[in-house]
Amino acid sequence: MILGKKTRKAGLCNRHWNINLSWSAVVQMCQEDEQVVQASDVEISALVGWMATNSDGIHDTDIVEYCSRLGARNYNFMNYPIGGMKRSSWCPEKNGIPPPIDLPDLQLDVKLWGTYVIGRISDWIDCDANESWLADLSCIEIEKELNYMTYMPLRVLTLELKHRDSPKLAEILTKWMWTRNMTYSVWVFLPTDENLLPVTDCGQDIRDIWRIWADFRSLCTNYPMQKLAVGLRLCPNLADEFLEPRLYKRWHAEPLCSFCIETSIFTSSGQYGKCTLPPAHYRLLMDLFVSVVQRPLIHCNSSEQVDEHLRLQYVNMIKQLIQEKAIQSKEAALAGSDDNVLFEYLGHREYVDTLQMPLQPLADNLDSGTYAIFEEDSVKYDLYREAICYAIEDLVKITGEERNIAVYLLGAGRGPLMQMIIEAEELFNAKSCNRRDLLKLELYSVEKNAHAVVTLQFRNKHHWKDRVQIIEGDMRELSEKVRAGQLPSPDLVVSELLGSFGDNELSPECLDSITDILRSTTISIPQQYTSYIAPIQSVRLHQKVLCCSGGTKYFERGFPGRGRLEPVKLQDGTYALPECPEASQFDEIYVVCMRSVCELAKPKAVFNFEHPNFERKSNARSVCIQFTIDMQSELMGFAGYFTARLYRNCQLSIVPQTHTKGLVSWFPALIPLRHLYRLQKGTEVIFHVERKIDTRGVWYEWFCEFQNVDGKIKTTPLQNKDGMSYFMRL
Amino acid sequence: MILGKKTRKAGLCNRHWNINLSWSAVVQMCQEDEQVVQASDVEISALVGWMATNSDGIHDTDIVEYCSRLGARNYNFMNYPIGGMKRSSWCPEKNGIPPPIDLPDLQLDVKLWGTYVIGRISDWIDCDANESWLADLSCIEIEKELNYMTYMPLRVLTLELKHRDSPKLAEILTKWMWTRNMTYSVWVFLPTDENLLPVTDCGQDIRDIWRIWADFRSLCTNYPMQKLAVGLRLCPNLADEFLEPRLYKRWHAEPLCSFCIETSIFTSSGQYGKCTLPPAHYRLLMDLFVSVVQRPLIHCNSSEQVDEHLRLQYVNMIKQLIQEKAIQSKEAALAGSDDNVLFEYLGHREYVDTLQMPLQPLADNLDSGTYAIFEEDSVKYDLYREAICYAIEDLVKITGEERNIAVYLLGAGRGPLMQMIIEAEELFNAKSCNRRDLLKLELYSVEKNAHAVVTLQFRNKHHWKDRVQIIEGDMRELSEKVRAGQLPSPDLVVSELLGSFGDNELSPECLDSITDILRSTTISIPQQYTSYIAPIQSVRLHQKVLCCSGGTKYFERGFPGRGRLEPVKLQDGTYALPECPEASQFDEIYVVCMRSVCELAKPKAVFNFEHPNFERKSNARSVCIQFTIDMQSELMGFAGYFTARLYRNCQLSIVPQTHTKGLVSWFPALIPLRHLYRLQKGTEVIFHVERKIDTRGVWYEWFCEFQNVDGKIKTTPLQNKDGMSYFMRL
Repeated sequence: MILGKKTRKAGLCNRHWNINLSWSAVVQMCQEDEQVVQASDVEISALVGWMATNSDGIHDTDIVEYCSRLGARNYNFMNYPIGGMKRSSWCPEKNGIPPPIDLPDLQLDVKLWGTYVIGRISDWIDCDANESWLADLSCIEIEKELNYMTYMPLRVLTLELKHRDSPKLAEILTKWMWTRNMTYSVWVFLPTDENLLPVTDCGQDIRDIWRIWADFRSLCTNYPMQKLAVGLRLCPNLADEFLEPRLYKRWHAEPLCSFCIETSIFTSSGQYGKCTLPPAHYRLLMDLFVSVVQRPLIHCNSSEQVDEHLRLQYVNMIKQLIQEKAIQSKEAALAGSDDNVLFEYLGHREYVDTLQMPLQPLADNLDSGTYAIFEEDSVKYDLYREAICYAIEDLVKITGEERNIAVYLLGAGRGPLMQMIIEAEELFNAKSCNRRDLLKLELYSVEKNAHAVVTLQFRNKHHWKDRVQIIEGDMRELSEKVRAGQLPSPDLVVSELLGSFGDNELSPECLDSITDILRSTTISIPQQYTSYIAPIQSVRLHQKVLCCSGGTKYFERGFPGRGRLEPVKLQDGTYALPECPEASQFDEIYVVCMRSVCELAKPKAVFNFEHPNFERKSNARSVCIQFTIDMQSELMGFAGYFTARLYRNCQLSIVPQTHTKGLVSWFPALIPLRHLYRLQKGTEVIFHVERKIDTRGVWYEWFCEFQNVDGKIKTTPLQNKDGMSYFMRL
Repeated sequence: MILGKKTRKAGLCNRHWNINLSWSAVVQMCQEDEQVVQASDVEISALVGWMATNSDGIHDTDIVEYCSRLGARNYNFMNYPIGGMKRSSWCPEKNGIPPPIDLPDLQLDVKLWGTYVIGRISDWIDCDANESWLADLSCIEIEKELNYMTYMPLRVLTLELKHRDSPKLAEILTKWMWTRNMTYSVWVFLPTDENLLPVTDCGQDIRDIWRIWADFRSLCTNYPMQKLAVGLRLCPNLADEFLEPRLYKRWHAEPLCSFCIETSIFTSSGQYGKCTLPPAHYRLLMDLFVSVVQRPLIHCNSSEQVDEHLRLQYVNMIKQLIQEKAIQSKEAALAGSDDNVLFEYLGHREYVDTLQMPLQPLADNLDSGTYAIFEEDSVKYDLYREAICYAIEDLVKITGEERNIAVYLLGAGRGPLMQMIIEAEELFNAKSCNRRDLLKLELYSVEKNAHAVVTLQFRNKHHWKDRVQIIEGDMRELSEKVRAGQLPSPDLVVSELLGSFGDNELSPECLDSITDILRSTTISIPQQYTSYIAPIQSVRLHQKVLCCSGGTKYFERGFPGRGRLEPVKLQDGTYALPECPEASQFDEIYVVCMRSVCELAKPKAVFNFEHPNFERKSNARSVCIQFTIDMQSELMGFAGYFTARLYRNCQLSIVPQTHTKGLVSWFPALIPLRHLYRLQKGTEVIFHVERKIDTRGVWYEWFCEFQNVDGKIKTTPLQNKDGMSYFMRL
């Protein structure tokens, strides 16, 4: 089930320049690391900026005029050197002194700075220059500009990687991010042309551009995108990795916040002709542009002043491209497909990339609102009704109208499936006029949540003509009552006890508890389910899991943990979970609407369960699954899915390749590893996972092995040992 | 200075029933423990509810009709038994079985439940009843109702204290609050009539009603108001403590969320005459109603059905009272007084009771936005200009037009005081037509924040005709330059370096650093300042300080701390503050717009500083200050204030009793104790505080002694030893 505890922040204020979606609001969004734009707010026309250069011929105290000139050309913001243009265009010389920072704050209102301007490090600054005097000078001067950014009310600072390795720059940024309450994000640009990051004389470097960025952010300790994000500079030449979707989709797993489009890419048929992008660039941009929070910037790298008419054409072309992507997304969303769709068109945008704790409906009672949300998934219930129809057909043949058919709904909740059972009966009766009597099922509804039983009773009286016998209690105590003759043996058992990873809400344990009271002909809906996993790359989800740590507030110390331990009362009368050094937030399973993710191989099956389990097979499991990874990449963990066969060919699936259209009840599960693992092309990844059971509950333990092409094997630590971090209570 | 780092949540959605301010929004507000209503949102017409009883003659499945009937009578919500009226009105009997919970959720939309209904524990439930069978039964049945609340989408549950001591109830609630992710608040009602909480046979109990509540919430570990709040039931009889403002103002320091007004209080002249409250009740309600988040409830405790016309009269009377309070508040706010004003009329509502970290302008550089906010305080700058005018008059006499007068602005920021100096000069020239020449001051502006210097230069060029010599650097290095003859000795030194507790932004250290370059006639503005403290009661602020602990997130481990230690780099390249077990969030000074506070004695002076400090007195200090507390109360810590004499009779004060009208730059300081201390009437409280200095910074250390009337002395632990928790860097 998808629902977790999540507070939504809403209500970012809107400010207007040329278009309706506020730039300041979306920058803020990206900084707060939350997707919060409301459906009604989304008007897909992304904000496009201009990268100001010296050739624009402006002065550092004329920002107001410059902004309005760009605004008249349909631009929404500009990228401007934070130290001023004079300083930025300085030609560095040994023993020379760069012009001082001079971009006075008073010329623009505090709010307008943040709305219309994003900063840039002076173009000449190069902390990792080969000339040590330039490197040293740059390290001093970049600090001043980082500092001036904290003074100014700007929210973004851009800079470019000038080398394949930039350790000094990384060191400076890392210290800033960790030890300063930075109020802005740094966007680091990399070119799409590998020739612009030449290999130094000393030798070979087989790393691609993605890998160069990944190494840089690793040096920066993978600090989250509130402070560190990446931009791609689209150059005329595209390296191979930007031509193959399989490879460039790795950027979906990165905090890709911006595109800097060089004007030399545009082809134009005469001065007043229409401006276009070459097909490869067009496709790349269409595929990597996944949200309006990504900011395209247009950059003229010639030294001549750009023609005003062309400037307008460039921005219009990019806005048109985004419009096309929006139209495609809208169509795809309506068609129920959500592949390569703008985030803004996803059904549950506020959940995108948000970690949720899996529900434990067995141990906890769900609340009324949660039931109400799940009941809205008509696709799921339509499938159930269809499956029940088939089962009724078969059961009528089996029982031969000799006796009533006893139908048990196990874990009835507020009764949505009971409604389906009754509708299936009506459908059967409507088409079976040749029967002697109308079919009348005997209906039993078992629910252990006493609160939901209040609702069931209300529905029974008002909707179901008191036909249903409601049994308040745990289904694991049902067999006693049947054996005592108080209740008949079931012919049909219907349940919906599946989690995102199939069995993780303990459906096997619940359903097995009634095996001894079943007839040999009893049908279970679902009949069978299988969990799946696929290896994934995602620095973003790794950061999110990291962020789950260390944040226990004083008054929340006693809240239920997800591990095996339970809170205890302390001497001062307060409660707290016992300290548990083995527990780690990386050893838990999460539920996530995954977007900033790249699947590194196709999903494979993990655990399979069948019902009724007449053979009384154990529900403990142990498997290992092998994947071959066919590119330079970074393993974060595994996405978990499931498929379920309800009855005959009625199938539910949340495996991406076979996803049931329109099914919204389940987001994928996330099974993290404790660290990010850089993989070479061709690495074999072997995932070991066990499903373990004791008297108190069920848990998974897992670890990985990597076999590189050179045959070396690396093993990761065993995670969630003894269920200390993630424990599904029985 | 007032500004701290604070993120504001905004944009609570509005839902409407009868009036414009949404009930659901404000309950949410109270639960989130944040004051977030925007100025434009505030329409002062509080929401008034009806407490449903059996005599209303309704059924548990007619909630919709009942709601609309009450809505037509101008009520905004109702208080209804969460288990249903049938269950609530059960007469408990030994071995009897109470009716089951039966208040079906489906009859009202999820959102409407939360908007129109607050829950109530069944009236007969009494966990601390003398009859053990009733107590035992109550303990079982209250759990069911607390559980059903988590199922239902309600946000508040009310119950009444029925005894002077309720340990079993406290134990149950405490366990719930600590170990369950409770989605609602519990409002505990106490009567204003002490006879309704009779002393049990075994003896004396001198505790008043406030103390009974305080004992109860202590038993509940003082859990914050998101989950535990208090309501007062206004009975016909008022205990003495509700007649004397000095005593009932202690309730301002409690999470007082509601008033339950008994209909028997109202006096009415005939059925169609106007309904009124007795004067004492009226005054009590007017004084204790401080925010529209407090919810009045009207309760008819007779067994007869209430007349519909009277029901309307009651609610209108209460709404009128609130309207009157709003009008008074508006007038008071316009007149610049904020005593006993509705929170909604305070200038900075989002700051109310919010802990902020004091700025350290000496160690840190302020940003442009912070300067902009401080520059808006015209009251402060008008006073400075006046003081500068007086100083110029005196200096003209001293220098006798023989030489120019050298004016130094120390810590110029973006130059607001330079503007005042220039205006003072203009004023002087305007009224001194008899002088030979116009006065022309020599102006020097010293500022260590390089970023603010960019602004100063801009203003110097555009506003000040390049008259001002701008010196970028620390004022503590100024004397070198003067001694080297590069700059003249100052005749007038102007600065604004004061914090909420006077010297806590290190004004003494900064100003003393230039003593050796002063003339004997040099004037300092300010000339003198004194810090003040007053003992305060406030469980709310104690909870807020508690909440500051234990919440360090992974990616914020390296953020600057407030104590002496600085972040260090770890092996993995990340940064973190070193572990420091001695450090405590209770040993820090905060800045707070204090509202949920009761001053227990008048403020007294603490430290005094004079400038110029020609005698070179040390700025280390050690004092002890004695207060007598004249009521049963609970000491939380001390409020800190200051007064400053700028020059002659130009005085700034944030001491409440002498507060400069309209001055908004400083909220009070908060100096917490580590625990809440219950005081008997007549206790002597002695506050010991030292101001300590070493080469790296300045810090306060403090502790308290209490001498009870019986002569016993209790000493609290020394706080902030060696500045490990709060350290002002030099």
